Amino acid sequence: MKHFVTMKDQSEADILQLVKKADYISKHGTVPFQSPFFAANLFFEPSTRTKMSFVVAERKLGIEPLDFAADSSSVTKGESIYDTARTFESIGANVIVLRHQQENIASQLADSISIPVINAGDGTGEHPTQSLLDLVTIYQEFQQFKGVKVVIAGDIKHSRVARSNAYALSTLGAEVYLTGMEQWQDNTLPYPYVPIDEATEIADVFMLLRIQHERHQDHVSFQQESYLEQYGLTLAREAKMKHDAIIMHPAPVNRGVEIDTHLVECGRSRIFKQMQNGVATRMAVIETLLNQGGTFHEKTINKRQAITG
Amino acid sequence: MKHFVTMKDQSEADILQLVKKADYISKHGTVPFQSPFFAANLFFEPSTRTKMSFVVAERKLGIEPLDFAADSSSVTKGESIYDTARTFESIGANVIVLRHQQENIASQLADSISIPVINAGDGTGEHPTQSLLDLVTIYQEFQQFKGVKVVIAGDIKHSRVARSNAYALSTLGAEVYLTGMEQWQDNTLPYPYVPIDEATEIADVFMLLRIQHERHQDHVSFQQESYLEQYGLTLAREAKMKHDAIIMHPAPVNRGVEIDTHLVECGRSRIFKQMQNGVATRMAVIETLLNQGGTFHEKTINKRQAITG
Amino acid sequence: MKHFVTMKDQSEADILQLVKKADYISKHGTVPFQSPFFAANLFFEPSTRTKMSFVVAERKLGIEPLDFAADSSSVTKGESIYDTARTFESIGANVIVLRHQQENIASQLADSISIPVINAGDGTGEHPTQSLLDLVTIYQEFQQFKGVKVVIAGDIKHSRVARSNAYALSTLGAEVYLTGMEQWQDNTLPYPYVPIDEATEIADVFMLLRIQHERHQDHVSFQQESYLEQYGLTLAREAKMKHDAIIMHPAPVNRGVEIDTHLVECGRSRIFKQMQNGVATRMAVIETLLNQGGTFHEKTINKRQAITG
Repeated sequence: MKHFVTMKDQSEADILQLVKKADYISKHGTVPFQSPFFAANLFFEPSTRTKMSFVVAERKLGIEPLDFAADSSSVTKGESIYDTARTFESIGANVIVLRHQQENIASQLADSISIPVINAGDGTGEHPTQSLLDLVTIYQEFQQFKGVKVVIAGDIKHSRVARSNAYALSTLGAEVYLTGMEQWQDNTLPYPYVPIDEATEIADVFMLLRIQHERHQDHVSFQQESYLEQYGLTLAREAKMKHDAIIMHPAPVNRGVEIDTHLVECGRSRIFKQMQNGVATRMAVIETLLNQGGTFHEKTINKRQAITG
Repeated sequence: MKHFVTMKDQSEADILQLVKKADYISKHGTVPFQSPFFAANLFFEPSTRTKMSFVVAERKLGIEPLDFAADSSSVTKGESIYDTARTFESIGANVIVLRHQQENIASQLADSISIPVINAGDGTGEHPTQSLLDLVTIYQEFQQFKGVKVVIAGDIKHSRVARSNAYALSTLGAEVYLTGMEQWQDNTLPYPYVPIDEATEIADVFMLLRIQHERHQDHVSFQQESYLEQYGLTLAREAKMKHDAIIMHPAPVNRGVEIDTHLVECGRSRIFKQMQNGVATRMAVIETLLNQGGTFHEKTINKRQAITG
Repeated sequence: MKHFVTMKDQSEADILQLVKKADYISKHGTVPFQSPFFAANLFFEPSTRTKMSFVVAERKLGIEPLDFAADSSSVTKGESIYDTARTFESIGANVIVLRHQQENIASQLADSISIPVINAGDGTGEHPTQSLLDLVTIYQEFQQFKGVKVVIAGDIKHSRVARSNAYALSTLGAEVYLTGMEQWQDNTLPYPYVPIDEATEIADVFMLLRIQHERHQDHVSFQQESYLEQYGLTLAREAKMKHDAIIMHPAPVNRGVEIDTHLVECGRSRIFKQMQNGVATRMAVIETLLNQGGTFHEKTINKRQAITG
């Protein structure tokens, strides 16, 4: 793995390897340490959980985060993403984490720069570490993907996670179903749409998406009040879910819109578990990218062992 | 070389020495270190000293600060304080430091979350670590509180520190007096108001408050020019203070308004000493909160001793 | 104590315990795991490379950067630079790095504060660490300065680097030439102006400046399209440069304006090498400032050696 930009072309083996590594890290943790490694976190769009999750992951690996604020940077003087990224590479960044509103930009950057680029969300494109942490969460529940019925529900058209997850889950042998309001359907995806009531009953994993108000350029008016009743996860629907089925949501949750507020932290909800897995997932990705040829381990982890044990 | 501000007056030898040192470092590099504790610093209002003081305190305890910028976070997508705090808890925060414009919000959050919450100022409510650092400053001066005469002066109505301090000082046995302009008095507080000239003469501690222009919703017009003369600490009033009396102010100071600018760093001023105590105070609070059952010491301080001694 | 939210319900014993703990800490400090050194990075103007370069340099020296965001600080409440700097000094900063739009402000601050101040750019004044890193880059190329022909090209009038570099290069024995559009010339500098075509042919070092659109109060209109052809470094001019001559630019580059975009990363370009040298340069400056009398080495570097080997 040279970069980590998309889930589309990842083989089953590669994904599984990352999933298992993240799972391992989430159980065992690491001994932290500062090291001469640096990560440039280039966030051009608002983020709490993704950005902070990367920061914690980096810290736990002994990597120093370099915090970039677009609005007080040279980007305000017209500097391009490429020149900004090359700048960070030059001053010592070992990896770049990029969130940006423009689709494919992480992939373009990956083609032109020599340090690894991690896509932390590119417009309506992809958000592969979010996808990976969802897979880690499912894996921890079922210890496999084959035959697991996953329903992806909601604003599929504007979601960068829906696409990444659907591709990856198919690759891993899960059965993917979609459900949602007609104007938010994406008919380029080769998965069946099912009505919401049926969807909640068949799901092993009911994966809600966030309604991305901020990406709705068409400003499709929808009734927030009746949305939950018509398309969301109500208490009544949850009551009919399979015994072992789980609820997922990438957050931030629009409480009372996509899901009844009382279900956010219910027994089958894995919403905060997903966030927790986000840290281990990003550790797995970063460690894999940096440890090509064992250099990262050699410079940080072995040294730690020498000190700690 | 004491400062490094200009190239104009540098000698050839000095420049060459730096050039060679930089060249040497660029060829040979260096090594570093840290711990698995994290603090989420959630500041929803401007702050320099409180925020930075927490950051330094955390760092000195071996805790990693997670820096949250409300305006580039998911709060802009409508996420609540509770969900934001739970997110930080999920990704690994061990303590939350909250500054927010809404009164009682820290206390509400404390009731619903499992990690410790530190109130770093809630609107016109309280600011208990500021209060505590004021107490530390008084304690260092008098080694006790019983019988110490403390005058709290100025914009009492809009101050969150005045209330906290008054309560705590009473609890500790100090004698509390108030002084200030009539429209800024808070008559719910059970302490006597005295005129400014009398106040400066009786005080062992003359504790000024900042005029909080940004909280004056009523925009009471007051003459900045005559305010100092009428209600502030002038050179003339300072001259009549008791021999061992001290001056305090939580800062930022409005120089020439609450206090004559020449008194800010005079012999009896403890204004910068207060800031310095702010770090030790926040270390004491964080350490006390995290070390329930000794876990914090066990995981960090002992390990340090194992390494350092 | 589970949370710390209010002073109102604290018992006398609890308050006293915290007060005494804080007092103890303020007198004895803690065993610093991480080093007890802090750098206050006070950036009042946009910056990517300078700010991040300082952060990386600080980290590599084991110093904790304190990140100051002017727009969410007490500066918004009217606090002066002096009071802000004294605040950082009080809470534990060992060095101040200041970028500000006002000329001479770093030098004024240096006169009134006891910790070292590093000027990271003061309006149209100086930017000495940028200058120093340019010198490091030239030194690495020629192992000396005597007789090296350096052409400084472009917006000399608004450049804070041009002045610093010209002074320092003269001091070191280099031959300085200037070239550029007439209205951007600075005739107070004692160096000859030469036409662009001649300048590129005589240069050992062709040092471009950035056109500082944001500092052009006069908004001199210039044709971006014809500027490159008339005053910039075109492919044709580069082809006539000396065999071993190098190209430098402080960045961010206005590609296609000051320099043909294809030359930014060409064989003779040292543009990204300059940024790389920026880290080592700032390490050299900070280490030199902090290690007066050997204290810095004693507290950090020796301890590291004790730990690592």
